Amino acid sequence: MSTPALVTLPDIEAAAVRLAGVVRRTPLLLTQLGRPEAPLWLKAESLQLGGSFKLRGATNAVAQLHDDERARGVITHSSGNHAQALARAAREAGIAATIVMPSQAPAVKRAATEALGANVMVVDISEREAVTERLRVETGAVFVPPFDHPAIIAGQGTVGLEIAEELPDVATVLVPVSGGGLISGIAAALKADRPHVRVVGVEPELAGDLAEGFTAGQRVTWSSANTGRTIADGLRVTAVGDLNWHHIRTLVDDVVTVSEDEIRAAMRLTILEAKLVCEPSGAVAVAGYFAHSKRVGPGPTVAVVSGGNVESSLVRDVLR
Amino acid sequence: MSTPALVTLPDIEAAAVRLAGVVRRTPLLLTQLGRPEAPLWLKAESLQLGGSFKLRGATNAVAQLHDDERARGVITHSSGNHAQALARAAREAGIAATIVMPSQAPAVKRAATEALGANVMVVDISEREAVTERLRVETGAVFVPPFDHPAIIAGQGTVGLEIAEELPDVATVLVPVSGGGLISGIAAALKADRPHVRVVGVEPELAGDLAEGFTAGQRVTWSSANTGRTIADGLRVTAVGDLNWHHIRTLVDDVVTVSEDEIRAAMRLTILEAKLVCEPSGAVAVAGYFAHSKRVGPGPTVAVVSGGNVESSLVRDVLR
Repeated sequence: MSTPALVTLPDIEAAAVRLAGVVRRTPLLLTQLGRPEAPLWLKAESLQLGGSFKLRGATNAVAQLHDDERARGVITHSSGNHAQALARAAREAGIAATIVMPSQAPAVKRAATEALGANVMVVDISEREAVTERLRVETGAVFVPPFDHPAIIAGQGTVGLEIAEELPDVATVLVPVSGGGLISGIAAALKADRPHVRVVGVEPELAGDLAEGFTAGQRVTWSSANTGRTIADGLRVTAVGDLNWHHIRTLVDDVVTVSEDEIRAAMRLTILEAKLVCEPSGAVAVAGYFAHSKRVGPGPTVAVVSGGNVESSLVRDVLR
Repeated sequence: MSTPALVTLPDIEAAAVRLAGVVRRTPLLLTQLGRPEAPLWLKAESLQLGGSFKLRGATNAVAQLHDDERARGVITHSSGNHAQALARAAREAGIAATIVMPSQAPAVKRAATEALGANVMVVDISEREAVTERLRVETGAVFVPPFDHPAIIAGQGTVGLEIAEELPDVATVLVPVSGGGLISGIAAALKADRPHVRVVGVEPELAGDLAEGFTAGQRVTWSSANTGRTIADGLRVTAVGDLNWHHIRTLVDDVVTVSEDEIRAAMRLTILEAKLVCEPSGAVAVAGYFAHSKRVGPGPTVAVVSGGNVESSLVRDVLR
């Protein structure tokens, strides 16, 4: 089996050009929350248009469609943030989008996706790939996957470019992991010129498929019955993608896990102290910073707050 | 009675130089929430160090102390955000700070001020000026007022400089009003080069002393029993300062008021849609945008989200 080519820094720099004017350059904020030897910065992708980093990859993918592909529109499956992002990128490009969404997705994410003009289909999470494929064949729409695609990885990698530009002496970047698009892109962006920057993935213990696979040296798939238990609804994907796995095993330094209580505490801290509204998935990297001080190590540290799309009832619950 | 000199653009530009490296340049974020004819931007001073714009004025004032003044330290009275700001500015400058705080101030603000190393005295709100004066005489500390001082106004005015730099075609800026330091500085910064930019003050109806005085053409004082009723704890000051009044009547275009329900709705929107944690005072300008579309007028509009220091119980309450 051949090893696929990894996304390169020039791929990510080209994505940054395509994203300019559509995607927001999000703030990188130094907090007062860190340990003295490892100041903690937050990359606030929660303030990205649409409330998550996903707009970067979706915009980069849509920007590279040919005219005949644009005419047929795009389709994807997503638990929410990729859905909104693709819907927004499609609307910006003036093309149609169909989104297949698992029934567990928060109502706030479904409503936001529909408000962006997308055609939303709700199905059981176990059927989403099959339904997406059937619709793709029927309509001819172009499938834009949530993470397992070089254009998606290159787009998400622009987060890494911005970190490197604004914090040149960054030592460690902590990244929430679901399908692996964000960490693959960030690692590809940072490791090219800065091989000594540590890139660390963070997963919920309840969706720790990559942590297990990273230690074992081979990709592992968990059941959706398992990963569905975490509060971090954006991180319930059952395995990283194939292309993502190749990036991670080549470029990522470590993968750690955090408990549900640690995720809730990190959400509370991010909301009340850093003043950033975050979803549970968005707080996972912050949780990793506090739960794994030795594996994080010293030096300027960035936790990527990947998204802020959260139901008000959940915010109330974690602030109780 | 002579009219005092107004703060000038060069005063504010000099403040910006003093603030560099201490105070954060906060993001100016385009929301999706505005009316088509008046896009709504948020100036997120909630993300300022210490959680409010107040660090700007305090830092500018402390930076101009002479050596003998530095040795005696600084003192002020404040319902919270100026307290934290002066405590932080004093700590950065390596000098002592005493803060006289009214007993109604949220516990989170008192705790934050003490954590910054300040000596905090809690008194009834009606006594705070007398107690501050007594301590000032006893200790020789330099009084740094919350708003009625040219150095404070010039420091807060750097918010206006940043808005003008990042959004050159800004048409209207909405500013929460308490003692008037922030709106005085912003108006002085913007009106010098851009006389056609509209600067509009926003107050809670329950603390509408400036709205009444602005219409009447003379400064009005409300009782603290009245202003104490608003949820916006940062805006309970009973009158704008004297120097602030001179800036406002010369430079400000309009002053509007908003109801408590409108403030709560604006908080909810700012938290859930713009993903910014804000205190009630910080949401007042957003509330003004929605409550007064005609008086806001068309064109790119900025609402200053002045602070984000809020108790978790209040966030839970407004999200109910």
